Amino acid sequence: MTIITLTTDFGSADGYVGAMKGVILGIAPNVCLVDLSHEIAAQDVRGAEYVLGRAAAFFPAGTVHLAVVDPGVGSRRRPLLITTPQAIYVGPDNGLFTFALDEAQAAVFELDQPEFWLPNISRTFHGRDIFAPVAAHVTCGVAPRTLGSPISDPVRLPTVAPQRRADGHVAGRIIHVDRFGNLITDIPGGWVDEGRWCVEIAGRRISHFGTTYADATTGALLMLVSSAGTLEIAARDGNASAQLGVGVGEAAILEPVA
Amino acid sequence: MTIITLTTDFGSADGYVGAMKGVILGIAPNVCLVDLSHEIAAQDVRGAEYVLGRAAAFFPAGTVHLAVVDPGVGSRRRPLLITTPQAIYVGPDNGLFTFALDEAQAAVFELDQPEFWLPNISRTFHGRDIFAPVAAHVTCGVAPRTLGSPISDPVRLPTVAPQRRADGHVAGRIIHVDRFGNLITDIPGGWVDEGRWCVEIAGRRISHFGTTYADATTGALLMLVSSAGTLEIAARDGNASAQLGVGVGEAAILEPVA
Amino acid sequence: MTIITLTTDFGSADGYVGAMKGVILGIAPNVCLVDLSHEIAAQDVRGAEYVLGRAAAFFPAGTVHLAVVDPGVGSRRRPLLITTPQAIYVGPDNGLFTFALDEAQAAVFELDQPEFWLPNISRTFHGRDIFAPVAAHVTCGVAPRTLGSPISDPVRLPTVAPQRRADGHVAGRIIHVDRFGNLITDIPGGWVDEGRWCVEIAGRRISHFGTTYADATTGALLMLVSSAGTLEIAARDGNASAQLGVGVGEAAILEPVA
Repeated sequence: MTIITLTTDFGSADGYVGAMKGVILGIAPNVCLVDLSHEIAAQDVRGAEYVLGRAAAFFPAGTVHLAVVDPGVGSRRRPLLITTPQAIYVGPDNGLFTFALDEAQAAVFELDQPEFWLPNISRTFHGRDIFAPVAAHVTCGVAPRTLGSPISDPVRLPTVAPQRRADGHVAGRIIHVDRFGNLITDIPGGWVDEGRWCVEIAGRRISHFGTTYADATTGALLMLVSSAGTLEIAARDGNASAQLGVGVGEAAILEPVA
Repeated sequence: MTIITLTTDFGSADGYVGAMKGVILGIAPNVCLVDLSHEIAAQDVRGAEYVLGRAAAFFPAGTVHLAVVDPGVGSRRRPLLITTPQAIYVGPDNGLFTFALDEAQAAVFELDQPEFWLPNISRTFHGRDIFAPVAAHVTCGVAPRTLGSPISDPVRLPTVAPQRRADGHVAGRIIHVDRFGNLITDIPGGWVDEGRWCVEIAGRRISHFGTTYADATTGALLMLVSSAGTLEIAARDGNASAQLGVGVGEAAILEPVA
Repeated sequence: MTIITLTTDFGSADGYVGAMKGVILGIAPNVCLVDLSHEIAAQDVRGAEYVLGRAAAFFPAGTVHLAVVDPGVGSRRRPLLITTPQAIYVGPDNGLFTFALDEAQAAVFELDQPEFWLPNISRTFHGRDIFAPVAAHVTCGVAPRTLGSPISDPVRLPTVAPQRRADGHVAGRIIHVDRFGNLITDIPGGWVDEGRWCVEIAGRRISHFGTTYADATTGALLMLVSSAGTLEIAARDGNASAQLGVGVGEAAILEPVA
């Protein structure tokens, strides 16, 4: 069974995701549907890019990832299909798939063949009317070139890599806050050696480096390497985001310990 | 694979929906389960009817829609199965399926054959004990007449159609507010022509008619045709419900522009 | 199709559950995945044990239940696999499966064969790196003894049974509060006969015993037998938890009616 994953900011109350699944199953009855997240903050393209990028790596080759966080729906923003050696991505051209565009051999197509869409296209729900049927047709073997035309200028989110500064500090930032309030930074875990660095966030310095949450006392803040491989700041059995009063975008500065 | 969709007000925390799925899969191991919504407001039969009615149209013929928003569980309210040429519906007789009762060739059965239910029937969870096993048996080919007896008086929700008034105004109302705060009315999109109508809600007049959300400036209110085909009021990149302080039931009055 | 259920405190926003499903489907493409709950309160092992224990009973024999509420992840807490005649359980050794350990013929294994895990094991996400691949391998027929070594001392949650006191009262407690605010106690429904008992919670005495929610007037509190078979206190069309200001752990004292 081919897998289609779904990532949206539709929430789970309104039945919008259900309608997309109905459309998919009408075309591809044997597909395996997996929800990645429908709780992306409304119109948070960057947040969706992060969640999808982290999870997609764990799916088998050939998985189709359908993602719809689409503030520009109905405007001239293009509908896209992207193929990589690992996966296929379907959704709006607004940077949602930036991580995939960086892969070798990524090919990008503008979806422009309405015979593979629903007969009536609403102005506000291309997830249901364009992206869901296209994702379903892909799993049935319709070739990307049949569904769209190659393009070379897909929208990318501007990305700011963490910086090694002249004073020996590393300047990164928080790129995700999860349900537990753990702060995930963009600083590679391999840059941080236990006991040789501390991190400063919102004027607070954290010098305890752990290998697991259990390495700190209850409520204490610690650094560790996240499951995404980057530096994470957590509070044992607590909520580091609430404790520090910080969220996505906040600076995280690594400083060598004297 | 036959599809069973699930719509409830059970939320996703307590495992109630999981128990229903366990019962279904014990009877019909090859069924495809699709969640439509479990975040219907507690006991909001009308809200569930709206969400299910909008999504059901997008599922392939033969889909079984299991819906349990059931404030009268355990009382004398009847358990129902409804067949239409398009779908089968299973759930309580409280108006949840009003939209399906209006379809041509709808047939309604009171479920009265306990040999197709779980052996022990709780007083408070017929979703698990009666409706889930019946939905599963339907997908295994058990005929509706074997599961229940025909009835002709199912409960319907009172519906109030939008009115064209003598003064040329159209009086409708908000029938759904989605996660984005978009206000979906019951006024058919075809009744509204750009530039010739404005809409008044809660004393506020909105005259901008767009084809997409992107047609307004950030935060501005606009009218457009919703993905359900009716008039919608939205705030670009904002929340129209919060901005206007209105919810389901609020009047929406269309007035010709002078 | 073999079923794998998933119970976590990961929420549904971050894509963590999606990554676990990707890992599973990469190993066992034909498995049927069912979410029980991902809204367990953060690190609430007892809450997860309750939800999983109640729902698991309704799944067909042979179902694999994967549960990850894991405050000790990365520490020396052991990863477990438990087999019973009814089901297989995979997750951390912290009491999450206490209900299953009490079953006759339960066998417990410590997972210690890394060749059945992901190649790279993070310190903070064993759900994805150890438990998901092991659950998948089990559904492919890998024997428990191949995946781990038998142990006899799994962690159990301390349980306090309801007490019949010398004064004729029964002392129980609230063990779950569901989405509707219904208060589920640990007092067996069979101990309570209508009209002969009242229950005292937080200084408030409730003497109305109903067979269904509809047996009370709107907003009124009543006792009834829950769908789990134990005494429940509910408010018709209302929220008993909010009305009484109580939650899990609160005492519920049954007293004979004079």
